[in-house]
Amino acid sequence: MKKISKADLPIKELVELIKEDFIKTDKLIKNQITSEVDRIPELSNHIISLGGKRLRPILTIACAKMLNTENNHHIALAAAVELLHTATLLHDDVVDESYFRRGKETSHILWDNKSSILVGDYLLGKAFQLMVKTGSLQCLETLSNAAAIIAEGEVLQLVATNNINIKKSDYIKIIESKTAALFSSACEVGGIISNSPSEINKSLFSFGRNLGTSFQLIDDALDYSGSSDNLGKNIGDDFYDGKITLPIIIAFEKADENEKYIWKEIFQKKVRNEKDLIIANNLIEKHKSIEKTIDLANKYGDDAKKDLSIFNESPIKKGLVNLVDFSLIRDH
Amino acid sequence: MKKISKADLPIKELVELIKEDFIKTDKLIKNQITSEVDRIPELSNHIISLGGKRLRPILTIACAKMLNTENNHHIALAAAVELLHTATLLHDDVVDESYFRRGKETSHILWDNKSSILVGDYLLGKAFQLMVKTGSLQCLETLSNAAAIIAEGEVLQLVATNNINIKKSDYIKIIESKTAALFSSACEVGGIISNSPSEINKSLFSFGRNLGTSFQLIDDALDYSGSSDNLGKNIGDDFYDGKITLPIIIAFEKADENEKYIWKEIFQKKVRNEKDLIIANNLIEKHKSIEKTIDLANKYGDDAKKDLSIFNESPIKKGLVNLVDFSLIRDH
Repeated sequence: MKKISKADLPIKELVELIKEDFIKTDKLIKNQITSEVDRIPELSNHIISLGGKRLRPILTIACAKMLNTENNHHIALAAAVELLHTATLLHDDVVDESYFRRGKETSHILWDNKSSILVGDYLLGKAFQLMVKTGSLQCLETLSNAAAIIAEGEVLQLVATNNINIKKSDYIKIIESKTAALFSSACEVGGIISNSPSEINKSLFSFGRNLGTSFQLIDDALDYSGSSDNLGKNIGDDFYDGKITLPIIIAFEKADENEKYIWKEIFQKKVRNEKDLIIANNLIEKHKSIEKTIDLANKYGDDAKKDLSIFNESPIKKGLVNLVDFSLIRDH
Repeated sequence: MKKISKADLPIKELVELIKEDFIKTDKLIKNQITSEVDRIPELSNHIISLGGKRLRPILTIACAKMLNTENNHHIALAAAVELLHTATLLHDDVVDESYFRRGKETSHILWDNKSSILVGDYLLGKAFQLMVKTGSLQCLETLSNAAAIIAEGEVLQLVATNNINIKKSDYIKIIESKTAALFSSACEVGGIISNSPSEINKSLFSFGRNLGTSFQLIDDALDYSGSSDNLGKNIGDDFYDGKITLPIIIAFEKADENEKYIWKEIFQKKVRNEKDLIIANNLIEKHKSIEKTIDLANKYGDDAKKDLSIFNESPIKKGLVNLVDFSLIRDH
């Protein structure tokens, strides 16, 4: 069993503040994945039971509660956000050919690619059904935008595979799309459903984008510097998949001619081995790529905190600030 | 080049009546698949350029025009319906491992499974963006229901692969889900967006369901009785994929002990060959399975026509009636 990391405390504290709604959301999610076709609840339960941090629905609930929402629509939205996220995870695992997620075998390994694709589509449909039930076209707008942007980011990442010459701006675009887009919409719908003015909703959107970007940057750093036990996946997954992330982009930018040659050789190969990873890690260390990636994540984290400055002080606001810090210091 | 079949005339006549809107829809679809990420328009254009019959958007436009719709929202809905359909085709081709669609190589063969999965997700997101723009929550409701039901039907079909004991009711459920659900919503949104009363919308929904079911039954019959040239795919695709469709269900129901043994042997195999198809076709012919499948399709076709009885006579209504007949006599 995985140890509970100290780094998880800020999430636990925030969840404590929204506990009742968090439990309702969890129930609603589980309620959505029922179907007479057994494969659907079986496979959905598998990926949902892996748990994860449930960061996105926590953000929706917390933002709505911070703004004193007066109905229960934020529960449906939080569940929709998590279902949308789960659908993308199912498809991602097929695309990345991942064997493990959070320390457990992935669905497409336990069942097959076909089931993961189709159950992902089913969860996407269920997510939109939930959004429709809230009656908020504005929420549907931001979340359907997010759905398209996430997929666009994933395609961009796919075509950039093994491309050591990827521009930093394209890399940032990928993580803004594949990760930050849903964070920002998850936060924004919390404001929209609380009938908040557009200025507030814009700040929430921006907060989510900055938090999501900082979150993904740390994820990308952890892939080279974390420990497998904590991550629940293997170190170097991105490396073996040929995903060129910021630690590599920085090391490649700073590389001399010999180092550039090495990087090109490594990513021209179809398959990379452990020896390649050791070489890569040495170059990453030499050019302080991890530190620089974390620095950039901190910058986004600072911006996220600034986005919260227009809100009155409250326990939930404090919880959101702590969440930004958590995303920066976490080890998984 | 494929000959234009005489059976296509009813579609051509109907399109002639809604030509302006049909062209606008086509433009809007092409407009939606633009992206800075080249792979997205490349792959989308490939599958969209294969054309197909565009039956679903034709239904949306025709139903809206028959009910004298007063704005242009039906164009966005027709485009959304076709994008939703295209997304499911991309995922289906991966799931079915199909090499050809409409006589051309499929996208996942020309590119890869990963691209087809992710571009499918992108088109799904774009479909929902278009629906949101119409501002109709009721349209979003029926189409998000359809999205979930289609995926559920595809999973049911997947788990029923090679199951010669599938119940007829389960088979009907599969085709109602994977095909008829989108036909019914495509028709219903034409009514909803024209501010028609719920009685009208229910009739349109029922018309679409009956037409879609009859359409799929004929598709399933054509897989054993059509010609490859007309179909643009191979005869026996369902058979080789292990999809148990009505022609087989009927032949299995009527089979004596020896024949049952043969059927079981055939579908216990992981791979079936041409000799197996010849044996299957002989049993299908012996028990008049194709004729009986067409009979059932005709029954659904008759019900579809009855659903239209509440509408005033008009050229478009006549066009829809002819479309039902087309779906029954077509050779592709």
